[in-house]
Amino acid sequence: MATVTGKLTVVGLGPGNAGQLTPEALAAVDAADAVFGYGPYLDRIPARTGQSRTPSDNRQELQRAAQALESAAAGANVAVVSGGDPGVFAMAAAVCEAIDKGPAAWRDLDVTVLPGVSAMLAVAARVGAPLGHDFCAISLSDNLKPWPVIEKRLEAAAGAGFVIAFYNPVSRARPWQLDRAFETLRKHLPASTPVIFGRAVGRVDERMAIVTLNGATAAQADMATCIIVGSSETRVIPRANKSSLVYTPRSMPDVTA
Amino acid sequence: MATVTGKLTVVGLGPGNAGQLTPEALAAVDAADAVFGYGPYLDRIPARTGQSRTPSDNRQELQRAAQALESAAAGANVAVVSGGDPGVFAMAAAVCEAIDKGPAAWRDLDVTVLPGVSAMLAVAARVGAPLGHDFCAISLSDNLKPWPVIEKRLEAAAGAGFVIAFYNPVSRARPWQLDRAFETLRKHLPASTPVIFGRAVGRVDERMAIVTLNGATAAQADMATCIIVGSSETRVIPRANKSSLVYTPRSMPDVTA
Repeated sequence: MATVTGKLTVVGLGPGNAGQLTPEALAAVDAADAVFGYGPYLDRIPARTGQSRTPSDNRQELQRAAQALESAAAGANVAVVSGGDPGVFAMAAAVCEAIDKGPAAWRDLDVTVLPGVSAMLAVAARVGAPLGHDFCAISLSDNLKPWPVIEKRLEAAAGAGFVIAFYNPVSRARPWQLDRAFETLRKHLPASTPVIFGRAVGRVDERMAIVTLNGATAAQADMATCIIVGSSETRVIPRANKSSLVYTPRSMPDVTA
Repeated sequence: MATVTGKLTVVGLGPGNAGQLTPEALAAVDAADAVFGYGPYLDRIPARTGQSRTPSDNRQELQRAAQALESAAAGANVAVVSGGDPGVFAMAAAVCEAIDKGPAAWRDLDVTVLPGVSAMLAVAARVGAPLGHDFCAISLSDNLKPWPVIEKRLEAAAGAGFVIAFYNPVSRARPWQLDRAFETLRKHLPASTPVIFGRAVGRVDERMAIVTLNGATAAQADMATCIIVGSSETRVIPRANKSSLVYTPRSMPDVTA
């Protein structure tokens, strides 16, 4: 009887600089016989002799997952790499989905997910602590879910006082969604609510901006941007000689008492 | 004129094992003259000759932040350590709040926050990808906000289809809140919704459990537990020879189309 001997590790590479890559992630990539991932993520990690690399486009998650699982089922030690954390709008869910829908043998595979520093955490850290209290993360991609669901979640989150992090805020195929999202949020939040645009955080082309909800536009974002929209509790600390700090206090006064 | 020369770095130590501690976090702690933090977090990092350590109780965040800022304002290179990510219900917001309310000179300090792998990401990774789609993080501590606010957020999040991660689910002083939260969620979610209890993830005393919302009780959690409650989309993949995988699919069918 054939036994499955391969293994697959889904690896979070963090925001993109070596200082934010965990030792276990680096070790897993180094140990792999075969590495699968979106091309620019593969480019971040040093190549090793004897290791195969299979880059793919960033919208082929499910095919990439199936390909990687096939390779593992054939006996290889496989790594699938993701930017940030692989469990946040990334490859870990795609690998699970492929296993769920795939051949029974894939369920016998040794599958490990190694977490990483997700983009919202790195963006938040750059400006202080905007995620310091209850928050949520929403993907604005309506390739993957109907827009009315996104709209409903924006309203629920803003109405209940969550700070909101947007992933996948904009792309060439999705030009209007982010402005529509800001418009929806303006109905629920003060115009002065802080909004943080964090692009390519931790990389050489990093660009950070702190604006107000009133002044936030989709033109300030691209595919590499993670956006954090404060709650009505979020505060900005202006500093004369440094960039401002933004934070959401850990505590809320009990106004009902 | 006196110039502020010290600096303060808020450092995320990750879930607790060396493999998940980022190189930049390790370097910042090593470079510090003085390290402040909750005792058990200080115990995780190697002591260095000539470095002072000031442990404190885990409910003294604001005093600890002020003490650290004073030390930095006096010229020291100070590190304040947090478990997980310092921006998620942890020390980064406390440091910002202390600066906001403190002497003007503290605004001139060089303040840096270094992100880390937050508990929910590490717990999610252990079981697959339960945070694979829109999710939120809620602290169940009503020391810091009124319980009706927590209740409202639970209802908004579950009603809108977010997966929910609970931080600070239970403590000796807060014995009933978690069961009340499960009760509230049972009104909005199927009884079969997967619930993950992740205790001390990545440490020697790690304990993971996957149950259903119907069977979830506060007795399964302690202070070191992070809990993830799925949405109605979250799926469990049973495996004959391995622990089950839990994931939330990246996409949702367009039922309105």
